[in-house]
Amino acid sequence: MENERWILPDGIDEVLPPEAGIIERKRRELLDLYSSWGYDFVIPPFVEFLDSLLTGTGSDLDLNTFKLTDQLSGRLMGIRADITPQAARIDAHHIRSQSPTRLCYLGTVLHTRSDGFAGTRSPLQIGAELYGHSGVESDIEVLRLMMETLKTTGVEDVYLDLGHVGIYKGLAEQAGLNGYQERELFDALQRKAMSEVDRLLEVFSIAPEHAAMLARLGELNGDRALKQARDLLQNASEVVKEALDYLQMMADQIAVWLPDVPVHFDLAELRGYHFHTGVVFAAFVPGSGKEIARGGRYDAIGSVFGRSRPATGFSSDLKTLIRVAHLPQRTANQPAIFAPASDDPGLQKEIARLRSEGHRVVSALPGQHGDAEEMGCEQQLVLTDGRWQLMAV
Amino acid sequence: MENERWILPDGIDEVLPPEAGIIERKRRELLDLYSSWGYDFVIPPFVEFLDSLLTGTGSDLDLNTFKLTDQLSGRLMGIRADITPQAARIDAHHIRSQSPTRLCYLGTVLHTRSDGFAGTRSPLQIGAELYGHSGVESDIEVLRLMMETLKTTGVEDVYLDLGHVGIYKGLAEQAGLNGYQERELFDALQRKAMSEVDRLLEVFSIAPEHAAMLARLGELNGDRALKQARDLLQNASEVVKEALDYLQMMADQIAVWLPDVPVHFDLAELRGYHFHTGVVFAAFVPGSGKEIARGGRYDAIGSVFGRSRPATGFSSDLKTLIRVAHLPQRTANQPAIFAPASDDPGLQKEIARLRSEGHRVVSALPGQHGDAEEMGCEQQLVLTDGRWQLMAV
Repeated sequence: MENERWILPDGIDEVLPPEAGIIERKRRELLDLYSSWGYDFVIPPFVEFLDSLLTGTGSDLDLNTFKLTDQLSGRLMGIRADITPQAARIDAHHIRSQSPTRLCYLGTVLHTRSDGFAGTRSPLQIGAELYGHSGVESDIEVLRLMMETLKTTGVEDVYLDLGHVGIYKGLAEQAGLNGYQERELFDALQRKAMSEVDRLLEVFSIAPEHAAMLARLGELNGDRALKQARDLLQNASEVVKEALDYLQMMADQIAVWLPDVPVHFDLAELRGYHFHTGVVFAAFVPGSGKEIARGGRYDAIGSVFGRSRPATGFSSDLKTLIRVAHLPQRTANQPAIFAPASDDPGLQKEIARLRSEGHRVVSALPGQHGDAEEMGCEQQLVLTDGRWQLMAV
Repeated sequence: MENERWILPDGIDEVLPPEAGIIERKRRELLDLYSSWGYDFVIPPFVEFLDSLLTGTGSDLDLNTFKLTDQLSGRLMGIRADITPQAARIDAHHIRSQSPTRLCYLGTVLHTRSDGFAGTRSPLQIGAELYGHSGVESDIEVLRLMMETLKTTGVEDVYLDLGHVGIYKGLAEQAGLNGYQERELFDALQRKAMSEVDRLLEVFSIAPEHAAMLARLGELNGDRALKQARDLLQNASEVVKEALDYLQMMADQIAVWLPDVPVHFDLAELRGYHFHTGVVFAAFVPGSGKEIARGGRYDAIGSVFGRSRPATGFSSDLKTLIRVAHLPQRTANQPAIFAPASDDPGLQKEIARLRSEGHRVVSALPGQHGDAEEMGCEQQLVLTDGRWQLMAV
């Protein structure tokens, strides 16, 4: 029993030195980056009433949200599983600007299930959102900022996956699928279970010309998928064609801004389908399997808070980024100075001076176990010729 | 209903710009301060299994802790209501050094009830803990660091309250109180309900010489309380006298290190009685009523994790500190530069240069609502004589 006391729940982790120091450093660099792009930092609450938290977000987020009862109100609260809807609420309710609003955030979220990278249930979500503009330019701005985020944390060899929710939505609408059918087929496509897709299209009695387009969607991935889609989806509705055009514009802009980044299209991949409304994108590194950052357009989310604004943004887990990053020295602890246990005013003045200059000074405590070396100090303060001076340990 | 969607639970708050930026700035200053004193940053988890979280902490923390069921293990988890026991677990289990260990942290905690300053249930707890040394020197180090914390956040006119858990514990033991009686009397003393104290002492049939000492404890507060205690508690046990000596040593050291800080003694005030084992201290500002920071010695807490180490530390709520602080400009947002919507490579180069130098540059989006002024920018980039130059808005 005693040994079990410090076992943490699966997927819930703590961060110790020196990793905690690395996270803090990267946190600062990223928030400074976002600020330099005009994004304002917000701190949404860790818990909210469940109906605020889940409004407009779909059932996958609901299942992933821990619930608890508020003893003061008797109402059900949820622990946030995603900060994006909270930021949208803040834009819709508090900021109420007609001009574009840029917000960024960093904070822990909790998931009931471990579905993320490395099985974590407690990501340190970092992200940025841009409200009040619809168009490729704002999507490209947040995509560029996502790539800057990866660069700042030291993540290399990134490639991008691009998709557009309008393609599947448009084809499903054109084929006359009802809500249930749309979700079933979506699930099968997500799992790339193509024989199940064929079976469902037959069971749902979808007209052959529509079924053919939906069935081929699962094949439309890779760097040439957009060109293939032009052929395969010739008879698709305007909604679908506009989505393909939008993807082409995105790809053209990515070629300008991020010429070295490989782009794959995945027209059946519909990350955050219940939430996003337009282009969706995700960043991968070789061998990661799961995306390490993702984002896209979600224009409708603010409407449930009385104000529908165009919206686009990205988010990631800072702990994941640091795990896959190529960081020069993972053990880099700041070198420390050891000061003897003495209340000599001259010593205390010197300690205060060194600290105010950013040095790390550890005061010895009378009778303590461990000397300067055991305390990990590289220098110590020694009284020499009547002055306190730094000497190597 | 729609209007209610953005009502937050009582005592749960979100922080928006510019306050969120102020919190982030102070966060960095404080963590840098702690690092310069040799304290390592740790990030304990937001939730843990309940038995890890509450072990050795007493029933008040239990009542204040939100519980939830872990769907993966079926076990009960708790949302941390205090980070101090988590830091103690990290020292006992992970660090395992014989030398003094210094840890600091900053993170949100949640309380089921609003018992803190300004009724918050979601403090942003900040604190530092020192393990592995017993004696006035380590208590004074953390007390000094607490006062530096207040100074750094801009809190002025601070006074200190000093107490020692050993005084009441020693008197209760000497009087032969059982656990139930000790808690009942403690509650009455906390509420300074002196007639109830008298009644309880009579009901419990406490011998007159012990009852007299316990009854007078409630009067022992103020800056002369330590001197009065010497007279009133002449017949107290050694435990009590050692506690009084310890308080005297603390007061002497405070006079050396913090000569301008007024010190009050409150020998019946037993902040965190179920948790602390020695000296306890708290910082107040005029008109705050409730303490704004507190700390003290809690030597036993690590023993339940298999390793008992002396421990002392302090903690506070950063949001409270900023609320009571005298900050020069609360609305200070970084001045921003507006850049027109253009993909001219020269402009993009200039934007990148300005951002890398720490400037805040907001890119216009084609067709956006709001000009430079509406976007809160003081300068804008204008193409003049073939060069992109900064001009006042």
